[in-house]
Amino acid sequence: MARYDFASDNVAGAMPEVMEALARFNDGPAAGYGADEVSTRASDLIRGLLDADAEVRFVASGTAGNALTLAALAAPHEAILAHEASHVATDETGAPGFFGSGVGIVSLPGAAGRIDLAALTGALDRPDEPHWQFPTALTLTNATEFGAVYPQTDLEALAGAAKAKGLKVHLDGARLANAVAHGFDPKSLARMGVDILVLGGAKAGSTPTEAVVLFDQGVRRRFGARLKHGGQLVSKARFMAAPWIGMLESGAWAERARHANAMARQLAAAMPFKVVHPVEANGVFVEMDEATLERLRAAGWFVYRFIDGTVRFMCSWATTPEAVEAITETLRAIA
Amino acid sequence: MARYDFASDNVAGAMPEVMEALARFNDGPAAGYGADEVSTRASDLIRGLLDADAEVRFVASGTAGNALTLAALAAPHEAILAHEASHVATDETGAPGFFGSGVGIVSLPGAAGRIDLAALTGALDRPDEPHWQFPTALTLTNATEFGAVYPQTDLEALAGAAKAKGLKVHLDGARLANAVAHGFDPKSLARMGVDILVLGGAKAGSTPTEAVVLFDQGVRRRFGARLKHGGQLVSKARFMAAPWIGMLESGAWAERARHANAMARQLAAAMPFKVVHPVEANGVFVEMDEATLERLRAAGWFVYRFIDGTVRFMCSWATTPEAVEAITETLRAIA
Amino acid sequence: MARYDFASDNVAGAMPEVMEALARFNDGPAAGYGADEVSTRASDLIRGLLDADAEVRFVASGTAGNALTLAALAAPHEAILAHEASHVATDETGAPGFFGSGVGIVSLPGAAGRIDLAALTGALDRPDEPHWQFPTALTLTNATEFGAVYPQTDLEALAGAAKAKGLKVHLDGARLANAVAHGFDPKSLARMGVDILVLGGAKAGSTPTEAVVLFDQGVRRRFGARLKHGGQLVSKARFMAAPWIGMLESGAWAERARHANAMARQLAAAMPFKVVHPVEANGVFVEMDEATLERLRAAGWFVYRFIDGTVRFMCSWATTPEAVEAITETLRAIA
Amino acid sequence: MARYDFASDNVAGAMPEVMEALARFNDGPAAGYGADEVSTRASDLIRGLLDADAEVRFVASGTAGNALTLAALAAPHEAILAHEASHVATDETGAPGFFGSGVGIVSLPGAAGRIDLAALTGALDRPDEPHWQFPTALTLTNATEFGAVYPQTDLEALAGAAKAKGLKVHLDGARLANAVAHGFDPKSLARMGVDILVLGGAKAGSTPTEAVVLFDQGVRRRFGARLKHGGQLVSKARFMAAPWIGMLESGAWAERARHANAMARQLAAAMPFKVVHPVEANGVFVEMDEATLERLRAAGWFVYRFIDGTVRFMCSWATTPEAVEAITETLRAIA
Repeated sequence: MARYDFASDNVAGAMPEVMEALARFNDGPAAGYGADEVSTRASDLIRGLLDADAEVRFVASGTAGNALTLAALAAPHEAILAHEASHVATDETGAPGFFGSGVGIVSLPGAAGRIDLAALTGALDRPDEPHWQFPTALTLTNATEFGAVYPQTDLEALAGAAKAKGLKVHLDGARLANAVAHGFDPKSLARMGVDILVLGGAKAGSTPTEAVVLFDQGVRRRFGARLKHGGQLVSKARFMAAPWIGMLESGAWAERARHANAMARQLAAAMPFKVVHPVEANGVFVEMDEATLERLRAAGWFVYRFIDGTVRFMCSWATTPEAVEAITETLRAIA
Repeated sequence: MARYDFASDNVAGAMPEVMEALARFNDGPAAGYGADEVSTRASDLIRGLLDADAEVRFVASGTAGNALTLAALAAPHEAILAHEASHVATDETGAPGFFGSGVGIVSLPGAAGRIDLAALTGALDRPDEPHWQFPTALTLTNATEFGAVYPQTDLEALAGAAKAKGLKVHLDGARLANAVAHGFDPKSLARMGVDILVLGGAKAGSTPTEAVVLFDQGVRRRFGARLKHGGQLVSKARFMAAPWIGMLESGAWAERARHANAMARQLAAAMPFKVVHPVEANGVFVEMDEATLERLRAAGWFVYRFIDGTVRFMCSWATTPEAVEAITETLRAIA
Repeated sequence: MARYDFASDNVAGAMPEVMEALARFNDGPAAGYGADEVSTRASDLIRGLLDADAEVRFVASGTAGNALTLAALAAPHEAILAHEASHVATDETGAPGFFGSGVGIVSLPGAAGRIDLAALTGALDRPDEPHWQFPTALTLTNATEFGAVYPQTDLEALAGAAKAKGLKVHLDGARLANAVAHGFDPKSLARMGVDILVLGGAKAGSTPTEAVVLFDQGVRRRFGARLKHGGQLVSKARFMAAPWIGMLESGAWAERARHANAMARQLAAAMPFKVVHPVEANGVFVEMDEATLERLRAAGWFVYRFIDGTVRFMCSWATTPEAVEAITETLRAIA
Repeated sequence: MARYDFASDNVAGAMPEVMEALARFNDGPAAGYGADEVSTRASDLIRGLLDADAEVRFVASGTAGNALTLAALAAPHEAILAHEASHVATDETGAPGFFGSGVGIVSLPGAAGRIDLAALTGALDRPDEPHWQFPTALTLTNATEFGAVYPQTDLEALAGAAKAKGLKVHLDGARLANAVAHGFDPKSLARMGVDILVLGGAKAGSTPTEAVVLFDQGVRRRFGARLKHGGQLVSKARFMAAPWIGMLESGAWAERARHANAMARQLAAAMPFKVVHPVEANGVFVEMDEATLERLRAAGWFVYRFIDGTVRFMCSWATTPEAVEAITETLRAIA
């Protein structure tokens, strides 16, 4: 039986604070579709975390959150600028194109999953003509797919360049908790002009829920109908909202992300393979040939070879120092 | 503060058996996206309930389940036959059209939400020509939107007429538990040729989860990719599967639906307004003028005027005899 | 061999002025995709006809023109208000839903294809909530599908009611020439706030071309890309534009529509069956039982039973008084 | 006033044989939407050219033809394999994604626009899992975007590799006439298992019309409805069909493509810049720095810098030896 501990940060169960909140808000009838008090309270907590006015909605997956909101930012004959290794570009089975009815994705390069500013400005300077899908939005990911965290000023520069050209800015925050644990200020997002944030719940340690945060007034228009139409308006909405109360009221959202990041650093420090990307969040990416990876899997640890060819180890709220030690021992044995 | 007890069967929380199962399967890492043992076990239980081979997947809402699967049964330039009051036709904000890229819905009449056989055969006999969207699938709902249950032979006749013309058959089973509690045999569905069932979890008493049951081999092709592409492939899939183990292993799924139906009968028996549809499941639909409805709401009970003009009272696993008595008292006072 | 003369106004070939213009502008190279001088000249003529600033584009079918432009006026989770017998609602095989990615159509009643003002205001007053697709645009058809023409003030009242609620207004002008021949002022459209007009070429007597006229500034955004993305940006655009020069410079567009309308009046005057709708444009709609229709077809005249159950006779620029007399004779024989 | 002679093969008008046929078939009424005799006769000629049973339809643009048919070969959660420089991948503003509701395009490399067989088999061997869009069809282009023509055996090898894995095969034949003029046998397509061909009319010298040729029985299902739904079913279909009668009955389709190819060879022979791709069809692609291109344009000749960085010169049926000499003279002056 393979151990999946480091295969992804979504292999973990839910943190105790989430399970407690689910139970706490289970009693009695509640209005459906987000009109309940649990949803309001969770939304208030998220607005507080981000220090911003926003409409907050909860969806069951990050892919849905990203695809639905990107579709609100670009018409089908337009495009989204995204890092070439971003989740929306590589790991959502074309969901943005489906929700966006064929909306384009224009890929941009950049080290460790961070978009290169010069590549962005190059794309923004390309002429707008009818034979290609001109971008009208930029999506950023923080922390990135490769476990790096944008310095605040870098993210501001990218968002600023896009806004200056009239584009909207979207942030995939599936691992924003890990970025915040590294020092990123969540209150900076609204201030720098991010229009929509998809705030990760599952990877932060919740049962399935992601928060869609609409800063921009325009995209709020009939967003409830957009959710329903897109198959993302859950009737018993309290169960998508309660985990956020559990995570945010207790401080566990930030605290447990700090733990996950620390586990990644512990693993990186002991890693007998070359670590490729900065270890700033909860992932460690290493160079490992196929034979070695096979030995690791044969020894009972399932991990993925990632899109850039590295082998990826992800930590989560549930990763224990003992598990890190156990896999480290195996890694040393096969190195 | 309005009481929502009878506003819908989705205003209830989750039954204890569901909450227990969520907690039971929370520990330790698990493979994501449905490749975990909890998902397999829940799928096995559902296959057992239906006595059929099938691929089983879990999604977060019935609208998503219906829309995704209808899109698998008809091309965009084709159509779905549906009751004119069905959820897919009236209450999903066009989601079938969105997932089906403009797939048509051809509405059929019939008393109490049950499609009239003659209307179906009439539609099937309409010539197939390029200026309209010819139907390639039939969707049925059991129990219906109006609280009626199809007699087994009636459902077989409708499915048979559709299959004879080469159409696929889809069943919206958001309230199949209530139909089963009324005597409908869930094992009959596969035998009568239903191709896809969307089996309701939320209205049966779960946290958000609906089971998509694919009997037909053809529609299983890359259904995982279809789910992901449609924003419905949840990473921590165990939390969508565990409730089914809680409901089905214990027998609570059937037992609690019997309770809900019994509560509806109790309410109907005491109802001082004309009951319009057969009370065979968990809803009671009555004639009530607007002024009376306003008095009921002013007395603290929120209920909906439904699409057919009746006022709807829904019971659930959580409805108590005391609540029925309480609202009955108010109803008598305002009658 | 059946005669199709009265089956539709699209069974006719192209008028001489169109064929002459196609030949006239065929010589030499020309820039593609609408950047040529023929396209500019045709657009100028249309702007002159309508006395308005507008972006003008040419597409190959009215269905494409309607579907593409309606998609520019409503998001997928919103809807279009349309007459229940309108072409977009009944005769485009779901094309608006396809181009609009599931955009809804809300049908409105009204005699002779003209939307009833009270029905419109009723729909506009319906609450905007997330479980249905709220309308954001109104589409009108002039002349209507039933050969009636809106009095100017009626059309203004409908457009005004929609604009007052923030909706956009679209006009299907497949037979605007016939409405103008009846006295409707084409210069009134922009003044009354119509945002998009699809101006009919084929039914007016051209080879395949329809003019998409964008009065509204907002919808012009990247409309070229929208056309290309929607498969409607033709490379050799001059051949879609030249017919308009042929029709408009010569005055044939209006003159030949007057002829078509006159032929319809001649036919109606001699018609031995009950004429159902006002004969204000180029169609005559009569009550005729199935046996009689069969006799007419057996006598060699193919005409359609229309969506309202009447039998439809359409005249065009190519209809001759002799053909009207010939069919009249047959009609009298079978009556 | 810039000369567009070599900017594209779509800047030319229509050949005399096309104009003659348009006039020839203009008289009298004809059934609409392709049910007319002109459409049947043109279809027969195309079936004869290809020596195959097929359903033939006519659409107004190649982008529409490609996008509509690719959507018939892959579900939205699946993908199409295409050359990275193919028209569908680079020059259709995302139309395949729009008609295919987010269908993916997986790009493959290969010299001169011809897909590399090893790259194809590599893509076919990639595991089929739910997190990416697995390909179910291959699209080929002959002649390629870079003026090369596939040797028959190479095309057979590619089609065969795809068919062996159960994929469907699509051919973009916008310039098939030029490939045939180079020696490619059009009768080989059906024999090698191509399922759908989009046969180019515009670039061959017609007014706007492309022939969609459906060899595969399965994709013919309700293709008329698919056309209408996709905005591509033209009422006066005779005008889309007649050009094919003009081109094919006379032999002008092949003869004029031979002329275009000969003009390209004449230009290449005299070209003072490095010719990059094989000159096997009607295009010449050369290395030219930006300053030189500017001088060429300043001298009155508008040509495009193409997606691979070369400067492209296209010849057509209308290109004269005198024009080739004239541009050659300028090219020598600026070299």
